[in-house]
Amino acid sequence: MQLSIIKIGGNIIDDETRLAVFLDTFAAVPGKKILVHGGGKLATKVAEGLGIRQQLVDGRRVTDGETLKVVTMVYAGTINKNIVAQLQARGCDAIGLTGADGNSILAHKRVHPEIDYGFVGDVDSVNAAFLTGLLMLEKTIVFAPVTHDGKGLLLNTNADTIAQELATGLGRSFDVSLVYSFEKSGVLRDAGDESSVIGRIGPSEYQELKAKRLIFAGMIPKLDNAFAALRSGVGKVIIGRAEELPLLLAGKAGTTIVNE
Amino acid sequence: MQLSIIKIGGNIIDDETRLAVFLDTFAAVPGKKILVHGGGKLATKVAEGLGIRQQLVDGRRVTDGETLKVVTMVYAGTINKNIVAQLQARGCDAIGLTGADGNSILAHKRVHPEIDYGFVGDVDSVNAAFLTGLLMLEKTIVFAPVTHDGKGLLLNTNADTIAQELATGLGRSFDVSLVYSFEKSGVLRDAGDESSVIGRIGPSEYQELKAKRLIFAGMIPKLDNAFAALRSGVGKVIIGRAEELPLLLAGKAGTTIVNE
Repeated sequence: MQLSIIKIGGNIIDDETRLAVFLDTFAAVPGKKILVHGGGKLATKVAEGLGIRQQLVDGRRVTDGETLKVVTMVYAGTINKNIVAQLQARGCDAIGLTGADGNSILAHKRVHPEIDYGFVGDVDSVNAAFLTGLLMLEKTIVFAPVTHDGKGLLLNTNADTIAQELATGLGRSFDVSLVYSFEKSGVLRDAGDESSVIGRIGPSEYQELKAKRLIFAGMIPKLDNAFAALRSGVGKVIIGRAEELPLLLAGKAGTTIVNE
Repeated sequence: MQLSIIKIGGNIIDDETRLAVFLDTFAAVPGKKILVHGGGKLATKVAEGLGIRQQLVDGRRVTDGETLKVVTMVYAGTINKNIVAQLQARGCDAIGLTGADGNSILAHKRVHPEIDYGFVGDVDSVNAAFLTGLLMLEKTIVFAPVTHDGKGLLLNTNADTIAQELATGLGRSFDVSLVYSFEKSGVLRDAGDESSVIGRIGPSEYQELKAKRLIFAGMIPKLDNAFAALRSGVGKVIIGRAEELPLLLAGKAGTTIVNE
């Protein structure tokens, strides 16, 4: 059975008009589907409003206790529930989840030898039985980038990783297409030229482009996640522009990541 | 099949220790169950922090657009997800919902001849099929007091009413016990004396006590909801102290509302 897992980034969430257009397209995708959304700038705005200072350690954002509260509010509250309500308005029977809901994604607080990232989660397991149960009830699942550790702690978790872990965990029961949608048309040969989309990319070409520094920094974790998903049994991974979702799923736009 | 629907108020949510004790007790309740939580003072605190002024019309709180954003953040985000994570930590497989999730509670924006309450919802219907599906997947449902209108709008909705509507909607398929838990031991003969709990109360005694002004103001909507639930087929309604939950469910504490 087909399952589309689509990740949208913060830049779409932050733009009401673009989000509405995307949700029209997403609601129209046939069959079983999961949407994973990132955070966007609203969390920073709310944190600033509440006088919570963003902690940076070596240039990396740290999720301290106060920031975790804001992340939970904004990602699992505002953003998730608004997307769910807007999908319902489009006739798409959506349900919003964090990893704590139905114990759907179990994670642990990141352990790092040098940096304390705070309340950031690295995923341990996906509850495929429960998620399959929801999909069988004809629900479209909308995931906020928040997981839990099973001991009462919520954890801020990278949305790209969640999408990849869901694809992997559900890849055993479904024929999964994983789409990372973002602001570019796909993996570009020339970062400045939107028409230079690479249609297909395999691991050897990826290594080559990375060695030549032709792949820009933000792309690397996305591609690493994509190849990890493919290695663990996901059928298809596509990277491209959110507004082109139907074309991406049909393999007519974006970059398709292949294993060979 | 038995189903316990338990409503807890804001005063428990605001007190971390009391909430933890309550959740221990709730997690231990056997069988199928639903928790409905109110809002608490956190929403007011966050609204103040963000410089959003609480609008009052004739002494009644109004949910304007900015307040709705805070309600969605705090009720559906912070409070709901923390309760879910804490129940998971207690081995209780919880899932948090608003009325938008799975289209579980459909409402409309309140229409009132004199007062514009803003984004406040009056419930139209409960999606019993979906909620039954979740209960059959062995999930414990945790409801935030937020519904939707099916047209993309989230609505702030009274938690007592949600509990009653759920009890009514699910009363056709389950043998429902509805518990309104709060800070008092039950319906009191003497508001100042916690030992004056009325063990059972029927509609005629209720009318009598109300006429004599022996029922305090905050109790009246709770009792009206309770009788409405009984009239529409709910098996049992109990009002009492949250910490006494097992005794309330066993009929050994609190006030049992009867149809007699």
